[in-house]
Amino acid sequence: MKPKLAIIKIGGNVIEHAAQLTQFLGLFAGLDGLKILVHGGGRKVTDLSSQLGIKAQMVGGRRITDTATLELAVMVYGGLVSKSVTARLQGLGCNAIGLCGADGNAIKAHLRPVKTIDYGWAGDIDAINRPMISGLLQGGLIPVFCALTHDGTGQLLNTNADTVASELAIGMSPDYETTLYYCFENKGVLKDRSDQASVITHINEASYEELLRAKIIADGMLPKMENCFHALRKGVRRVCIGDIKMLNSGAQNYTTVTL
Amino acid sequence: MKPKLAIIKIGGNVIEHAAQLTQFLGLFAGLDGLKILVHGGGRKVTDLSSQLGIKAQMVGGRRITDTATLELAVMVYGGLVSKSVTARLQGLGCNAIGLCGADGNAIKAHLRPVKTIDYGWAGDIDAINRPMISGLLQGGLIPVFCALTHDGTGQLLNTNADTVASELAIGMSPDYETTLYYCFENKGVLKDRSDQASVITHINEASYEELLRAKIIADGMLPKMENCFHALRKGVRRVCIGDIKMLNSGAQNYTTVTL
Repeated sequence: MKPKLAIIKIGGNVIEHAAQLTQFLGLFAGLDGLKILVHGGGRKVTDLSSQLGIKAQMVGGRRITDTATLELAVMVYGGLVSKSVTARLQGLGCNAIGLCGADGNAIKAHLRPVKTIDYGWAGDIDAINRPMISGLLQGGLIPVFCALTHDGTGQLLNTNADTVASELAIGMSPDYETTLYYCFENKGVLKDRSDQASVITHINEASYEELLRAKIIADGMLPKMENCFHALRKGVRRVCIGDIKMLNSGAQNYTTVTL
Repeated sequence: MKPKLAIIKIGGNVIEHAAQLTQFLGLFAGLDGLKILVHGGGRKVTDLSSQLGIKAQMVGGRRITDTATLELAVMVYGGLVSKSVTARLQGLGCNAIGLCGADGNAIKAHLRPVKTIDYGWAGDIDAINRPMISGLLQGGLIPVFCALTHDGTGQLLNTNADTVASELAIGMSPDYETTLYYCFENKGVLKDRSDQASVITHINEASYEELLRAKIIADGMLPKMENCFHALRKGVRRVCIGDIKMLNSGAQNYTTVTL
């Protein structure tokens, strides 16, 4: 039987709110078993760029990673957030180690090719270094990944944190029974987006088709759900979607996605 | 026989000069055997604080680490410098992993107590986590340390990079035959500070006493030399002082310090 491994992704909404982050870190530290944390960065990069007079280049609502923005992302995600979270987890008795994809060649990527849009220093993931990450886990370390990868020739690349989490889960699946947790602002996938009590507790491929037809899953949830099914088809055992409280041992009110 | 381990410290003068950094990274990547890199940060923190309008607090020529300065140090040393150097070493086939003292509880410190001067968030080192660092080395990883430690209760601390290097060398010495390299701007300890050809190639306790009496070693070199002898008395095999070229396999023109 494969050992269980939890890959837990938190977004900017958790990083930005001190009370939420504190609550999350306590829950994460208390989780039994092997685990990996993946974090986004929050608004700090945007705040810092405006303080430094760096103009954000946006295309279709997406920030373009120019050289100045990459430098800020490396400082904020790879430095401030990564090391602060790691130090705080250490303070909670959780043996964290803050990493980016360049560290130990953990996550190799390539520069996203320019088709219609040049996203700048954005990386699409090629490979997860399972032996290295397994070695850390076996040594009792808890990897904390920021959403930065590298191309193997010296260049750091900015990568979507949801994708880093799903690719890590996929990449570890040959040796582990993986569960991917997406912590976001809602209690789960909602039937009625204005009602936090309307969580759909289980979704599989068949029910997903129905939810799509009924247009209950639409807009921003679409890419998230596609990402979930992609991970499940590539070997991830299950994906859980909810707010940070789903990490509470007794919690039941969140969405579990399986094939 | 203990395995050999080189601990190599580079200062801001190397980090700040692109050509020197490139040359150093090539030499470091090419070194055979087990090795650890310790880096300072250079002027970037100072530049960034003035850009952000953060006033540097100095006492007796030393920067006080207030909260805003610590945040910048974590961004620059723990993020930008650490991750860029790591990615570039990976590009040179060197399996680097960029760490601070909080990562895997590598370097535990305590807040420097206030006597006459309050240095702010400055840390004095208590313990090096030799089993963890040995585990990384045995796994084929090359640790790259910035000069940040933690207090074990969630607080990151700013620590002198020379001290991080010497404490790492001391801490690893029970299991390794350690050599500590200090790369700085001069070719070594000089008899005549205006003549780079006047390198003293070997210093031991007896010759050090003579150099002190003759006032050949004075001022800025004094604390550096005291630091060397402290490391040697605590188990480090030898300390080498010179510019980055001392890492060239054939190089002979630098200072070696032994007991």
